[in-house]
Amino acid sequence: MARDPSTRARAGLLHTAHGVIETPAFMPVGTAGSVKGMTQEDLERLGVQILLANTYHLYLRPGHDIVRAAGGLHRFMAWPHPILTDSGGFQVMSLKGLGRVTEDGVEFRSHLDGSSHFLSPERAVEIQLALGADIIMALDECVAYPSSYEATRRAMQLTGRWARRAKDYYERAGIRGSGFGFRGEASCDRLTLEVGPAFSESRTPNPEPRIPALFGIVQGGIDRALRRENAEQILGIGFEGYALGGLSVGEPKGETYDVTEYTAELLPWDRPRYLMGVGTPSDLVECVARGIDLFDCVLPTRNARNACVFTSEGRLAIKSARYARDQAPLDPACRCPVCGRYSRAYIRHLFQAGEMLAAILATQHNLHFYLDTMGEIRQAVISGDFVSLLCRVRTGSSKVSHT
Amino acid sequence: MARDPSTRARAGLLHTAHGVIETPAFMPVGTAGSVKGMTQEDLERLGVQILLANTYHLYLRPGHDIVRAAGGLHRFMAWPHPILTDSGGFQVMSLKGLGRVTEDGVEFRSHLDGSSHFLSPERAVEIQLALGADIIMALDECVAYPSSYEATRRAMQLTGRWARRAKDYYERAGIRGSGFGFRGEASCDRLTLEVGPAFSESRTPNPEPRIPALFGIVQGGIDRALRRENAEQILGIGFEGYALGGLSVGEPKGETYDVTEYTAELLPWDRPRYLMGVGTPSDLVECVARGIDLFDCVLPTRNARNACVFTSEGRLAIKSARYARDQAPLDPACRCPVCGRYSRAYIRHLFQAGEMLAAILATQHNLHFYLDTMGEIRQAVISGDFVSLLCRVRTGSSKVSHT
Repeated sequence: MARDPSTRARAGLLHTAHGVIETPAFMPVGTAGSVKGMTQEDLERLGVQILLANTYHLYLRPGHDIVRAAGGLHRFMAWPHPILTDSGGFQVMSLKGLGRVTEDGVEFRSHLDGSSHFLSPERAVEIQLALGADIIMALDECVAYPSSYEATRRAMQLTGRWARRAKDYYERAGIRGSGFGFRGEASCDRLTLEVGPAFSESRTPNPEPRIPALFGIVQGGIDRALRRENAEQILGIGFEGYALGGLSVGEPKGETYDVTEYTAELLPWDRPRYLMGVGTPSDLVECVARGIDLFDCVLPTRNARNACVFTSEGRLAIKSARYARDQAPLDPACRCPVCGRYSRAYIRHLFQAGEMLAAILATQHNLHFYLDTMGEIRQAVISGDFVSLLCRVRTGSSKVSHT
Repeated sequence: MARDPSTRARAGLLHTAHGVIETPAFMPVGTAGSVKGMTQEDLERLGVQILLANTYHLYLRPGHDIVRAAGGLHRFMAWPHPILTDSGGFQVMSLKGLGRVTEDGVEFRSHLDGSSHFLSPERAVEIQLALGADIIMALDECVAYPSSYEATRRAMQLTGRWARRAKDYYERAGIRGSGFGFRGEASCDRLTLEVGPAFSESRTPNPEPRIPALFGIVQGGIDRALRRENAEQILGIGFEGYALGGLSVGEPKGETYDVTEYTAELLPWDRPRYLMGVGTPSDLVECVARGIDLFDCVLPTRNARNACVFTSEGRLAIKSARYARDQAPLDPACRCPVCGRYSRAYIRHLFQAGEMLAAILATQHNLHFYLDTMGEIRQAVISGDFVSLLCRVRTGSSKVSHT
């Protein structure tokens, strides 16, 4: 692992059964087993190393039994590279009014057909084992911002108890008995994190069960004491990696950064740290500086569908009439295939005409912008130039300064 | 030009300023300057040699002035290969109630905002010259099936008078003076049709005006006498290629084939023949047998978006629950990239979940099916096996027999 001497930034390699992930890494979001508007070939061409998929959505449709019957999510969606599935906790929060949280778990109604379902910490692990991702998440309770101290504390404590149950279920499921475990191999300046043992991919429709890594999630809102208490609980249980949940849910940006820094500092240096649902390109730089290794966010893909593209000159609302005759690419400084071929005028027309190609091209470009940014960050950490990059971002002279 | 000895099938090369088209050819439809769900790179990978775009749609949005300002449609949509634009006559028919046909032209209201517009034969050429396609079409009046003899005759005669006006405008526009013209070079068994002179592509935003080929359209419904009368008018005016319009608009399939055969026979052997808006994969085989060189149809792309895929075992309604656990590709006999990677179960799920990728993958597959069929037809004509292919289609032993 390469570590920046004057910040908490680090660059490593995360080994999984489906491949190595260069960290820090950004995970595009494939909610229902597809990154909207992208083929898996497109994602490979963009250099995507790991995707995130949503347990809540895949459980409801097509159903984890169907995914398991296909040989797991990698085969089902024809993505033979690493996948992380979230536990469904965030969806239950964000679909408020459809769910009810009890000590046992979450009762919720499907946003698709109103049918009733129950998700417990055990069930969340069970479903994720059926999906067969490389990294799975313990069920947590995520609260919105602002929430009262009491609500935040109650959710944080519940998250701690659920984490224990998730881990217990995971171990009872015979996973530990299958020889599962992390191997951290520290060398002078590089740490290799191995997530799950390598396994030989079976060619049959029902291959050997996957052995994913289980990550724990630290909650606690923006209250440092609650974050510390939860981190101690979660670390005490012990997971292969640790996530920071409940950030970028409405709190001021300064709080996001401060709580990220505070919480990351509480986590073991040799385990991957994942900041859930964050953020903008400049957030990536700022939070890598605070010790984060993994990110996911719908921003590049959702913004793309809403005609908002990330460029080195800031965000661009490409549907604006000002671009109707603009023959320049989305971002003249960009090296992505979209900017190499298509004009703003054309892409603006595609959005106006409601053509699918509009979202396709904007998504390709935005994901390239994110992956390129992350590549630049990683390279800077390795070459010792990270502070210089961070400085450029903060002084407005980096391409991500205005994003 | 290779000609099948026992049918009217032929295989040739159509030369345009933007490249050579191997005929017979199928033109995917890019209504508003985009084949729905496909990037231009996808189309190139599929081996698409020529696209069709719609004058009516591009005139209304983004407007031909914007396309001209971009340097023409090829540059605007970043498709440096051949393009054919239709004249808008078919759209005016198919958007009935929004248009009124007079001797002068068509008054119509925009389907987008209700604004009033007027399209004359002259204006249709003018707009198409601004778009700058390689092949442009004279404005025609297309009638639906069934129509009375009188209505069909009236529209046919108007199409004849409009064709004269289109040609006159085209010549007055100085095109002829620009050295435009066809050069048919007959060799012992191969004809090279050149559409427009080669020109050196300028790199500036406003290159030299394009010199497209103007095609005439023969109407007349399913009445042979009207078809003959119109063909004589249109041939008398003289065009670089000839299209059969007003077919596949509701008439019985036998009539489509018979009228195609009858009309194609009236056209000069050394000019390309284009059957507009047709059809199914088996229609392609049957109409090549009747002397057709060019086809366009929305069927592969529109069906794809409606979850209907073409396979060697017939059409497949991929949303059906029977495919929920089907790990086979859309068509086990298909060599397209989609069938090489994705399962029916996954694509069915994508349709159920409303994911864009559903339409993207189904469109890629269907277009591959069409282009592969056309490639097989062309190869059969060249190698002298076309009758055998036709026989297999008719006896149910070809992959296109049930399409």
